[in-house]
Amino acid sequence: MKKTNFYQPVKIGVLGLGTVGSGVTRMLAHNAGEIRRRAGREIIITHAAARNLNTITANTIGIKLTEQALNVVQDPEISMILELIGGYEPARELILCALDNGKHVVTANKALIAKYGNEIFAAARMARKIVGFEAAVAGGIPIIKALREGLAGNQIEWVAGIINGTANFILSEMQDKGRDFPEAMAEAQRLGYTENDPTLDIKGIDAAHKLTILASIAFGIPLRSEKVYTEGIGGITYEDVAYATRLGYSIKHLGIARRGENGVQLRVHPTFIPKRQLLANVNGVMNAIMVKGNAVGQSLFYGAGAGAEPTASAVVADIIDIVRNLKTDPESRVPYLGFQPEALLDLPVIPINEVETACYLRILALDRPGVLADITRILANHGISIEAFMQKETHLTASKVPVVLLINPVKEEKMNKAISAIESLDSILAPIMRIRLEYLDT
Amino acid sequence: MKKTNFYQPVKIGVLGLGTVGSGVTRMLAHNAGEIRRRAGREIIITHAAARNLNTITANTIGIKLTEQALNVVQDPEISMILELIGGYEPARELILCALDNGKHVVTANKALIAKYGNEIFAAARMARKIVGFEAAVAGGIPIIKALREGLAGNQIEWVAGIINGTANFILSEMQDKGRDFPEAMAEAQRLGYTENDPTLDIKGIDAAHKLTILASIAFGIPLRSEKVYTEGIGGITYEDVAYATRLGYSIKHLGIARRGENGVQLRVHPTFIPKRQLLANVNGVMNAIMVKGNAVGQSLFYGAGAGAEPTASAVVADIIDIVRNLKTDPESRVPYLGFQPEALLDLPVIPINEVETACYLRILALDRPGVLADITRILANHGISIEAFMQKETHLTASKVPVVLLINPVKEEKMNKAISAIESLDSILAPIMRIRLEYLDT
Repeated sequence: MKKTNFYQPVKIGVLGLGTVGSGVTRMLAHNAGEIRRRAGREIIITHAAARNLNTITANTIGIKLTEQALNVVQDPEISMILELIGGYEPARELILCALDNGKHVVTANKALIAKYGNEIFAAARMARKIVGFEAAVAGGIPIIKALREGLAGNQIEWVAGIINGTANFILSEMQDKGRDFPEAMAEAQRLGYTENDPTLDIKGIDAAHKLTILASIAFGIPLRSEKVYTEGIGGITYEDVAYATRLGYSIKHLGIARRGENGVQLRVHPTFIPKRQLLANVNGVMNAIMVKGNAVGQSLFYGAGAGAEPTASAVVADIIDIVRNLKTDPESRVPYLGFQPEALLDLPVIPINEVETACYLRILALDRPGVLADITRILANHGISIEAFMQKETHLTASKVPVVLLINPVKEEKMNKAISAIESLDSILAPIMRIRLEYLDT
Repeated sequence: MKKTNFYQPVKIGVLGLGTVGSGVTRMLAHNAGEIRRRAGREIIITHAAARNLNTITANTIGIKLTEQALNVVQDPEISMILELIGGYEPARELILCALDNGKHVVTANKALIAKYGNEIFAAARMARKIVGFEAAVAGGIPIIKALREGLAGNQIEWVAGIINGTANFILSEMQDKGRDFPEAMAEAQRLGYTENDPTLDIKGIDAAHKLTILASIAFGIPLRSEKVYTEGIGGITYEDVAYATRLGYSIKHLGIARRGENGVQLRVHPTFIPKRQLLANVNGVMNAIMVKGNAVGQSLFYGAGAGAEPTASAVVADIIDIVRNLKTDPESRVPYLGFQPEALLDLPVIPINEVETACYLRILALDRPGVLADITRILANHGISIEAFMQKETHLTASKVPVVLLINPVKEEKMNKAISAIESLDSILAPIMRIRLEYLDT
């Protein structure tokens, strides 16, 4: 038997030495012994590119540094590139160039894979190289591997996940500490949980990128980031969180991909989920993804979604996978999206208007007789049925009263019409708050 | 690019057509389209062996049946064998014979892998074939893959899991419905959750098999099933469950593998865990495994642990893995235990006496002055400190009183001595109940 220790080390070039890049450098060094025991070879970073070499804080002893990423990508010594820059360009261009130069690629770039993955994977197939992207979704949770391989015997029915830690932290703060959105948001910023541009997290764009990837590998469909219905958490008030608790629910910002007879649903939005679900009890910056397969039933994968070390964990797992497969025929490797490229199905994405969900409504109304009768009449006229109802006891001094309803599953379009009709009543004082509700049971 | 549809189908032989065998046959047929999309080839069962062909209930249309397992194992048409018989023999012999005949093997047999895995993997290496055993631990949870590959960048510090669904069902019934052990056990039997011989579940033997496997792939150590300290749930009373709840804990039957400076701990026993941990909220027959890695932090994997379909999910995932790797050089495959065979470390297993844990004590004492002073004096003399203390209000009529203590972490040996000393007091009326406690925080 060959002595694996006699193999040459695998040499890697890193693009980007920010939080994740430093984390990967640190983990590869710190866990070097364990990694060699697993991979059978030494894995070392020999080259790295950073925008500004003067601001690097990572330990770069023994690493050849440059500000020219292209030099690393084209260096003949290197067999693998880690793209840890983020953003669309020059990341996309550098990855394509690396593949063109015969290098395998590992990336943590969810935005890039969600938007340009189809192009990048096609280029990788041409180049007969591997692109690993486990770190692009829920860093600390090996969910890409679970879906592409571990659950490969299943027809996946749906995936529902807490895939943005910042949004989950804010909602958890509101629930646990009774804070309103702006306060919880400020706390997230104070703790460094938000990006420079917090919009990506708060508006659900980051979650939509990750959902795009999850849906592709769950159902074997091309990446279609532009088709994801996306709603953020900016509109949630403490009042909504408190009602959710009283009704036995948590509000979580979920990415949901569901396959049905007419196509797939791809949606990201705040969601009421029953408190008894494990997913409802995933708090703080943690991520969790629930998967329903037709053989396995429900399973859940929980872990850190972001941060230097958890992301490094996913990047290094991809590196080890590639090292184990350096000599493997590309046809024998796990396909990029878990399905053979020619077997991808471009299933239609169902427009949100045609999606059927249950929901929570909070209606601020004048406190006068007949208001509730008006609301329920409109709902009945639209064929919408009420699952539960809650009206706060009226105070003598109050002139307005919140009416809270849980609505049975109904098509979005119908619900929108009913909401408009109710909002046009004289007695309704503010836009209606609607939060979709998922039982996650079937 | 090659048209994968033109590949010949992969032909499989099944040994055993009981619950799991029938489940696998069903899933392979039912999900055939999805499986071909993933694996790039058709996968069909062409041969099957069962002990008694007259009692088969599975759909076996198109499958060549025999009562002679050896005929299937030696059939030259077949490239892969599924061993779904269970037990040590003839399962072991048949697997070795299959490898010898150049066939890959998938097995769901935890007892066999825990006890004879080292031998079987050595034979597989010689034969340059793959042995898949994802189904051997927590069927519906792809935990073997997660540890061997998904978390490969980590040094794993510990693994703690609910890995026997029957024991978890019984403890959940006791907690949720206020039942005592015999009642909950009877309910499990009524629902068909127990084996013919329930000892394997109740005494923790089945969990010890699974923990053996988890520990090996987490730390890269040989399989050492004989070294697992094993305690079942038979001694747990409703009283203990109720105290746990009042103190903010759940009692779970855990398999725990922990790596420390002096070696590894391998232990299976009932455990107090804080209610705020997700693991404490995993109920019924479900399984969950928590993994602490030095990069990823804590992650949790949850799903069905047994049953025909979840087990079939794992078996089929292994089949697809093998089909994807049929042409792969054995040196490039993921090693059986996740570490290169020559890199396994035979770390010492720390005897339970030297393991340090916190624990819960329930002491039934005469209700008279000085008893508590005696107990606390003995503990203090042994250098043992108390974390919390609870004594039920005394009823005028009661002559005995339960004293409940939570003890700070202390070496088992020291705790045993203190327990003996307390039990030798005149005022102590029954053997002391001791349940270990894990915070699972670090």
